[in-house]
Amino acid sequence: MSDDIARKTAETAKLYFRGVETEKPYELWKSFDSGLARDLSMFITGQMYAREVLPHPMRQLVAVAALTVLEKKEELELHLRAALNVGCQPRELAEAIFQTAVYGGVPAMNQGLHVLRKVLKDQGLWPLGEAG
Amino acid sequence: MSDDIARKTAETAKLYFRGVETEKPYELWKSFDSGLARDLSMFITGQMYAREVLPHPMRQLVAVAALTVLEKKEELELHLRAALNVGCQPRELAEAIFQTAVYGGVPAMNQGLHVLRKVLKDQGLWPLGEAG
Amino acid sequence: MSDDIARKTAETAKLYFRGVETEKPYELWKSFDSGLARDLSMFITGQMYAREVLPHPMRQLVAVAALTVLEKKEELELHLRAALNVGCQPRELAEAIFQTAVYGGVPAMNQGLHVLRKVLKDQGLWPLGEAG
Amino acid sequence: MSDDIARKTAETAKLYFRGVETEKPYELWKSFDSGLARDLSMFITGQMYAREVLPHPMRQLVAVAALTVLEKKEELELHLRAALNVGCQPRELAEAIFQTAVYGGVPAMNQGLHVLRKVLKDQGLWPLGEAG
Amino acid sequence: MSDDIARKTAETAKLYFRGVETEKPYELWKSFDSGLARDLSMFITGQMYAREVLPHPMRQLVAVAALTVLEKKEELELHLRAALNVGCQPRELAEAIFQTAVYGGVPAMNQGLHVLRKVLKDQGLWPLGEAG
Amino acid sequence: MSDDIARKTAETAKLYFRGVETEKPYELWKSFDSGLARDLSMFITGQMYAREVLPHPMRQLVAVAALTVLEKKEELELHLRAALNVGCQPRELAEAIFQTAVYGGVPAMNQGLHVLRKVLKDQGLWPLGEAG
Repeated sequence: MSDDIARKTAETAKLYFRGVETEKPYELWKSFDSGLARDLSMFITGQMYAREVLPHPMRQLVAVAALTVLEKKEELELHLRAALNVGCQPRELAEAIFQTAVYGGVPAMNQGLHVLRKVLKDQGLWPLGEAG
Repeated sequence: MSDDIARKTAETAKLYFRGVETEKPYELWKSFDSGLARDLSMFITGQMYAREVLPHPMRQLVAVAALTVLEKKEELELHLRAALNVGCQPRELAEAIFQTAVYGGVPAMNQGLHVLRKVLKDQGLWPLGEAG
Repeated sequence: MSDDIARKTAETAKLYFRGVETEKPYELWKSFDSGLARDLSMFITGQMYAREVLPHPMRQLVAVAALTVLEKKEELELHLRAALNVGCQPRELAEAIFQTAVYGGVPAMNQGLHVLRKVLKDQGLWPLGEAG
Repeated sequence: MSDDIARKTAETAKLYFRGVETEKPYELWKSFDSGLARDLSMFITGQMYAREVLPHPMRQLVAVAALTVLEKKEELELHLRAALNVGCQPRELAEAIFQTAVYGGVPAMNQGLHVLRKVLKDQGLWPLGEAG
Repeated sequence: MSDDIARKTAETAKLYFRGVETEKPYELWKSFDSGLARDLSMFITGQMYAREVLPHPMRQLVAVAALTVLEKKEELELHLRAALNVGCQPRELAEAIFQTAVYGGVPAMNQGLHVLRKVLKDQGLWPLGEAG
Repeated sequence: MSDDIARKTAETAKLYFRGVETEKPYELWKSFDSGLARDLSMFITGQMYAREVLPHPMRQLVAVAALTVLEKKEELELHLRAALNVGCQPRELAEAIFQTAVYGGVPAMNQGLHVLRKVLKDQGLWPLGEAG
């Protein structure tokens, strides 16, 4: 079973984090403790993200909404990239971030928009076209 | 234009909050200030939720994710009901709540699951079947 | 100097918490450690709240705003009572709570309004009149 | 009525944000969606901040208290500038920030003081004189 | 290896949660999804809590401090019980909660003290003696 | 008594913050108000940290856990330095930070690990050896 989880972890990480060039969380963890890093990674990516109950674009919307209101900007950037990698549209991501202002306030929304604009610029997707 | 927003506000509120019997936020606001209550309601429901960039089930996932990590249990309950009203499946909602543990920790997830179980019980949808 | 702080602590506590019948924070602390309870109380009430840089009604608005967005409902209730004791008007308190929705989101505002309505009802000040 | 709100929005924005040279929230929103940016701005500035229940200096204290405990430093900077623009005194703003330590802890207070000191330096108001 | 983790999970859960009669998190999770419940439990209890880098009393202090400032009162109650089960003294737990006021504010500390007093009363350890 | 507190404040501050070269909180406070700065410092350091109910290494673990989940990175850095000054081991500090992911989520843990790695590098303690 463990091999299966390792495979799913690798596949899902590759799908989500394609093109990410900064230090990934797994690498940060591993610099402290390689065993715990592997356990954490296999749990989060292999046993949680790889589950098929929610399609990947919906999972990424969940991540984007939660990370925006919590103002975790490094992880928000990672998951905005993952969202684009699995097919979310830029205007959908902006809309999700705008919507969170109702729950978590305008300043958290502002930070989310800043991070999204940075990611879109990095990928040559800015400014947004009409159809988004 | 204002009539159009009023109409969208009413339609969207009806779609989301069908079957909700507790005091709705609009009623709370109105008990203090009817003008501001109307402005808030038209802005949130008519000018934000009624926009068509995100389909309603995706909007509700955004709400559920944000409200779970922020531990706003009254509003989470409202939006879990709205999510079921617009077609989200119970297992999808549970999955979204489970996923948020990565971002906001296990205790917030636990509270989200408690609220979801309560809503599902109220609606005769508990226990979950295999297919969810 | 210590006597002077003790006197200011007692006077300010009396001004703010007149009519509060639930266990006050000082009493909670004292049930664990009387020395630390006195130090905490003298610092917060005698060395902070008793300073004259901000008039008491402005101090209470600061408390109400912060406690609303942090969703600390027990302490919010205490400070709404203190605010009324030092002359804040019910409509001003409602307005301050409404305004915080911009910074901390609508659910925190909702909880603040619930607490305020409870306090106003307890004091026979509900429903609000036109002039507030 | 809509013209009236637009006028109030413009007047209040001018009053608050005179001298702010960084990108304002409205401009950030507009870079994503001009219609939603206008709705958000008219709601927050025209329908909320322009209400006369609270005088502007008290509104800014509410903003400063909430933004300090939430650690939203960009928006805190904006509202500290607005507070000075509507007549709040530097020592009153420092006092409000110090007071929030009781509710939101010392580290959030520290960040608030850092932002205030930066704003006061920018405006040639640092160091504080005796009378503040 | 998996058997080893299962054994450690069971042993550590037994050590920490002896005497807890309310629904445990694992049971809540299992009511939704037994596979994910097992994965979560093995990860948290078997792969994290069972590690020997920190002795159990220090781990419980970490939990108590974090859960107090986050105001997660159900989980705080669980970990206060675990702390007593692994040998922490009541006065040490009170002291840790008092200390957190500096970081997370007084209201969160107050809630922590309320939860601790409830646990100590349940276990016949209240009021505290001189030596704690 | 006041002299005794002043002495304890000085001794404890020296013990904790030896080697810290950035502006200390006391200096920040003093730049605004020297009286309040002294009161705050004597309360926190002299009347809280100097109490002997918890040994210093346990106090620092409490601080590290709380500050990690609250994501107060400046103060976390200060208390990680204090923790090393009073004898905590690098691997214990890493372990405490890893553990907090359960309560406050993975992104807050990531930030804590970043701050710890920076502190360890500054002190020539990176990379960690086997025994930590």
